[in-house]
Amino acid sequence: MITIEEHLAGILQATHRLPSVPCGLADAQGLVLAANVTSRWPVPLFDNSAMDGYAVRSEDATAGAILTVVADVAAGSDEDPAIGPGEAVRIMTGAAIPSDADAVVPLEQTDLGTAIRAEAPERITVLVAPAPGAHIRRRGQDASAGAVSVASGARLGPWQLSAIASAGIEQVTVHRAPRVAIISTGSELIAPSGTPRRGQIPESNSVLLSAAVREAGAIITSAATVADDPPALRRALDATDADVVILSGGASVGAFDVVKAVLGEERGVRFSQVAMQPGKPQGFGVLDEGMLAFCLPGNPVSVAASFEVFVRPALRQMAGFAVIDRPRVIRTAGAAWTSPKGRVQILPAVFDDEIVRPATSGGSGSHLVTSLAAATAFAVIPAETVRVEEGEPVTVMVLA
Amino acid sequence: MITIEEHLAGILQATHRLPSVPCGLADAQGLVLAANVTSRWPVPLFDNSAMDGYAVRSEDATAGAILTVVADVAAGSDEDPAIGPGEAVRIMTGAAIPSDADAVVPLEQTDLGTAIRAEAPERITVLVAPAPGAHIRRRGQDASAGAVSVASGARLGPWQLSAIASAGIEQVTVHRAPRVAIISTGSELIAPSGTPRRGQIPESNSVLLSAAVREAGAIITSAATVADDPPALRRALDATDADVVILSGGASVGAFDVVKAVLGEERGVRFSQVAMQPGKPQGFGVLDEGMLAFCLPGNPVSVAASFEVFVRPALRQMAGFAVIDRPRVIRTAGAAWTSPKGRVQILPAVFDDEIVRPATSGGSGSHLVTSLAAATAFAVIPAETVRVEEGEPVTVMVLA
Repeated sequence: MITIEEHLAGILQATHRLPSVPCGLADAQGLVLAANVTSRWPVPLFDNSAMDGYAVRSEDATAGAILTVVADVAAGSDEDPAIGPGEAVRIMTGAAIPSDADAVVPLEQTDLGTAIRAEAPERITVLVAPAPGAHIRRRGQDASAGAVSVASGARLGPWQLSAIASAGIEQVTVHRAPRVAIISTGSELIAPSGTPRRGQIPESNSVLLSAAVREAGAIITSAATVADDPPALRRALDATDADVVILSGGASVGAFDVVKAVLGEERGVRFSQVAMQPGKPQGFGVLDEGMLAFCLPGNPVSVAASFEVFVRPALRQMAGFAVIDRPRVIRTAGAAWTSPKGRVQILPAVFDDEIVRPATSGGSGSHLVTSLAAATAFAVIPAETVRVEEGEPVTVMVLA
Repeated sequence: MITIEEHLAGILQATHRLPSVPCGLADAQGLVLAANVTSRWPVPLFDNSAMDGYAVRSEDATAGAILTVVADVAAGSDEDPAIGPGEAVRIMTGAAIPSDADAVVPLEQTDLGTAIRAEAPERITVLVAPAPGAHIRRRGQDASAGAVSVASGARLGPWQLSAIASAGIEQVTVHRAPRVAIISTGSELIAPSGTPRRGQIPESNSVLLSAAVREAGAIITSAATVADDPPALRRALDATDADVVILSGGASVGAFDVVKAVLGEERGVRFSQVAMQPGKPQGFGVLDEGMLAFCLPGNPVSVAASFEVFVRPALRQMAGFAVIDRPRVIRTAGAAWTSPKGRVQILPAVFDDEIVRPATSGGSGSHLVTSLAAATAFAVIPAETVRVEEGEPVTVMVLA
């Protein structure tokens, strides 16, 4: 048996960031920047008003001063009206400050207050004298032209996309999202809505893996189910066009373990016994076309655990993420439970600010898919621990 | 001025869960179940083997017993071979346990070990006697027929979808995702890739809001930019087909505040001053067609803060989520900063396990979009606080 760390190290060594590609902002959500985005201009682009009010020469705008309103500048206007002594210009939030002004008197600091009309008034009385520069947002205060708006390596969420648009950029360079194919193997599998005869069970791994792949930021290119029939699996693999193929089932020591039979020798995939529970039988390798192949065990909880421990970090690395692991926190065991000797237990669990406990009282079997549905995390128990006692600290891999 | 809580209460009072609709599992990811899913059958469906090995009558399978292998049951097989005294059946993981067997001897606990051949051997020697029931997964151990697999109100992530498929269900009842339209207003707005003349700025709110809406689990139906022109905004609203329309800009006291002009009176939207910074001018109401209208201020940081505080909880409530708020944690201020008197500060921030600090040293202006890009959270500072001192506890709204 090898450790989780040894198997993962082999995977990550063979896993490379995907090429960087150009991408429009509208399609870039969730991807990782592959190059710095620099601003085309200073942000803000020009001195502008932070308030609805009056642009003034501050030396004129003493308390009690009566100023003549000579112009009206709306947001978006390209006007730059001259302001003489004793004059003011009505200005709206975001509008360019006239070159002659050095301060803004907000509406509420004039005799007319905020009851505003479409037409600017003829004159105003200043109630509170503005300091020079008051209520002016300065050109370049947020960022100068050429400054890095969002750095390479950042995930493009709403706020990053907003900053990039503000920097005048609509096309960015990103690592493309991994393209992933899923193949569920097993002659016992039928569609969930079917009517199973003796020995048949519903196929559920493709829906689990499809959703997990998408939540990791990758794209599903195909999902297929094949029987324990080597030629059928070979055909399915030959038809697969993806960066990664995730197979489930048929990876153990059984007589009909089709994945091991097809991928074990000829295509350079290594099968290992990994010291974890569930998820002991694991295969990984790089196929001829450069496609990564993950061969996971077939039971749902094994698939879920294997995905989190091995597949997701690889997908995140391909997509360019700096952080590829799930966050882990320490909580206190809210119950006692057993853990297999010599294997790391990956147990479906629920947790709150204080405690963690098994998701159900049903045990830790790899086939207990209903208990998986109740879980929001995996408790990760070291290989040397055979029993977790209530009150002991436990590592929690946070998933939901 | 009204408080954040008062404005949000008005919004949530007018916000209803969307109707429940049937949905195939393949399209259900991220949605919220509107009815319990009950299992069509016991899970597991039948007693099956947890190991590759030999199904035996435990009273015969003493240590050292030599058993004749009379049949071979693969996963998916519907065979139920008879097992007489002194006999065994080779069986693979997941295959149905023959009716005559009451235990499984794993491959590695026989004289032949795990070196398995396609053809079953003629006989085996048992090395370790199995207890009655050993390595058998019992029918219904995980869930009985008719039991609730996933309860109404659950978000359908990978694990829940897997449990539902295992329960034999491919069609579920969910709350549909909110359909959201976005309208950015302002005569100053041009496309980010354009060449601004004096007074013009790039439009960035639509990309921010589109991404934020999608990350909240909702669907964008349209995104438009309109000038400060009431007839144009009326036309844009009339053309909008959505559950929610989010407008940005034009919601304050300015002379050309088009959103307030169009929606203020005739269509029953209420505009308020909310005691927060940024985001003071807010509008909300229900339009004739039942469409919710959020009227947010125009600056990017204001839009981001308003979305998190007011829009996202409403979208989550419509989608059926039990928890509609972002998680909040307490951290220690890693720097000192000022906060406006009488208004709750919503400050772009970064945080780790111990401290929180402003995302940049540039200040808290609502136009500082580049600082927003560096943030992963909002620090939420009470209205009565005018200065946060280094070392004080601070509430952090966790976003990324």
